[in-house]
Amino acid sequence: MKVRRSERLIDMTHYLLEHPHKLISLTFFAKRYESAKSSISEDLAIVKKTFKERGTGILETIPGAAGGVIFVPTISKEEAKEYILALSDRLSEQSRLLPGGYVYLTDLLGEPDLLRQVGRIIASKYLGQKIDAVMTVATKGVPIAQAVSYYLNAPFVIVRRDSKITEGPTVSVNYASGSSERIEKMELSKRSLKRGSRVLVVDDFMKGGGTINGMQGLIEEFEAELVGVTVFAEAKFRGERAVTDYSSLLFVEDVNTQTKTISVVPGNYFDEE
Amino acid sequence: MKVRRSERLIDMTHYLLEHPHKLISLTFFAKRYESAKSSISEDLAIVKKTFKERGTGILETIPGAAGGVIFVPTISKEEAKEYILALSDRLSEQSRLLPGGYVYLTDLLGEPDLLRQVGRIIASKYLGQKIDAVMTVATKGVPIAQAVSYYLNAPFVIVRRDSKITEGPTVSVNYASGSSERIEKMELSKRSLKRGSRVLVVDDFMKGGGTINGMQGLIEEFEAELVGVTVFAEAKFRGERAVTDYSSLLFVEDVNTQTKTISVVPGNYFDEE
Repeated sequence: MKVRRSERLIDMTHYLLEHPHKLISLTFFAKRYESAKSSISEDLAIVKKTFKERGTGILETIPGAAGGVIFVPTISKEEAKEYILALSDRLSEQSRLLPGGYVYLTDLLGEPDLLRQVGRIIASKYLGQKIDAVMTVATKGVPIAQAVSYYLNAPFVIVRRDSKITEGPTVSVNYASGSSERIEKMELSKRSLKRGSRVLVVDDFMKGGGTINGMQGLIEEFEAELVGVTVFAEAKFRGERAVTDYSSLLFVEDVNTQTKTISVVPGNYFDEE
Repeated sequence: MKVRRSERLIDMTHYLLEHPHKLISLTFFAKRYESAKSSISEDLAIVKKTFKERGTGILETIPGAAGGVIFVPTISKEEAKEYILALSDRLSEQSRLLPGGYVYLTDLLGEPDLLRQVGRIIASKYLGQKIDAVMTVATKGVPIAQAVSYYLNAPFVIVRRDSKITEGPTVSVNYASGSSERIEKMELSKRSLKRGSRVLVVDDFMKGGGTINGMQGLIEEFEAELVGVTVFAEAKFRGERAVTDYSSLLFVEDVNTQTKTISVVPGNYFDEE
């Protein structure tokens, strides 16, 4: 039974949102809705226009017999900035101050709405680039990696400090934890990453950058390629960072345990371009 | 500027999918599209019908002045079963066999498509129930918890065996790890869970159920309430399980290290109802 345009548009939108960064042929939709390719083309033009106007993303059209459409989720700089500004306020709440000048973030990293937005914002930075895997370190980086992975439609891999028997053979590297000067070990299951993979590194928090630097070392061990580094939040760090080329959504510029104040502003994600 | 129906339907679909389990008023959409409430009502009727026909979910209509619509993502038993059957085959691949009869799952738990489906399948089991939080244990349970959290629009909390300074004060319990008879400790940040919260427990893998039992103990310590337990996969277990009331998507019924075969079938999720 032929499906009406209104129903096609609804289901098409759903399908595209669930399959970002994937080429979908006109034939696929034509069969799905038992409709002519010309009608599907018209539908897609409407979807494309609406996605663009609403800032949902870009619907790329690939012409030719092997063509179709690819949905690339995006977010405008303005919307991203507005969201991160509101988040800066939440991070600056006094109640987040922990002993030692740490900032409590755990609740935020469990909020589905926040993760969706953060995933969309980070993924938007790597639009034109091929990414085969998103890498992070257990445990608190995982939600960020998964959120980004959803929008890039690329798998995520989890580096662990304590790998389990269920990981199979692993590759490990030692790294200097920047803040403590201690030498630690991190491991990644050998099966998780193919040689030559293009890897995006994400994490929840960066101070000295030692952990990120460790992940870069792992990427080298796997003969893979680093595409970029983005962290949810970075803290001010006295001394030389182990990582210089990175992007941050939030910058914890000051934590004062005496006045009990935390000052958080948007990170360098917004400096560029 | 008034927005045309076709564009409204596309953006509405997007908005509803990103805000599951949330009451959205007709007024909100009427303002967003500068359209009459009567038109919005008609739009929503089309969305409702399409979502139902395609198995996307239920669009509940709440009448009255404070009314609106709530989108509840679902999956049909048939679609879920078909998906899990295909997954059973993937889990049965010989290459997944690890020393000690363990099964390698890590790659699967990093696939965004799989996580979306698994999240949708697990969330569908708790449709009518109020859930305030999804609980899991670090590290491999996290992707499952996040996936379910997206579809239920409820935050997830991560229980840890080694809590960090960044968690703030924690509550801990000891539990007997079923397979090894060892007594271990797990902790949850005190801020993560409010008293009286209704909690859904999820995890990647269950053998003796000791870890799940530990989480049940934590829920009691928080004076919260357990709504249910669902695991991605369960293994055959000789002896008495620490948990009896649970649901599993997959059942690893046999692992033979001599013939190097793994036999996986759909779990008890499909037995009920």
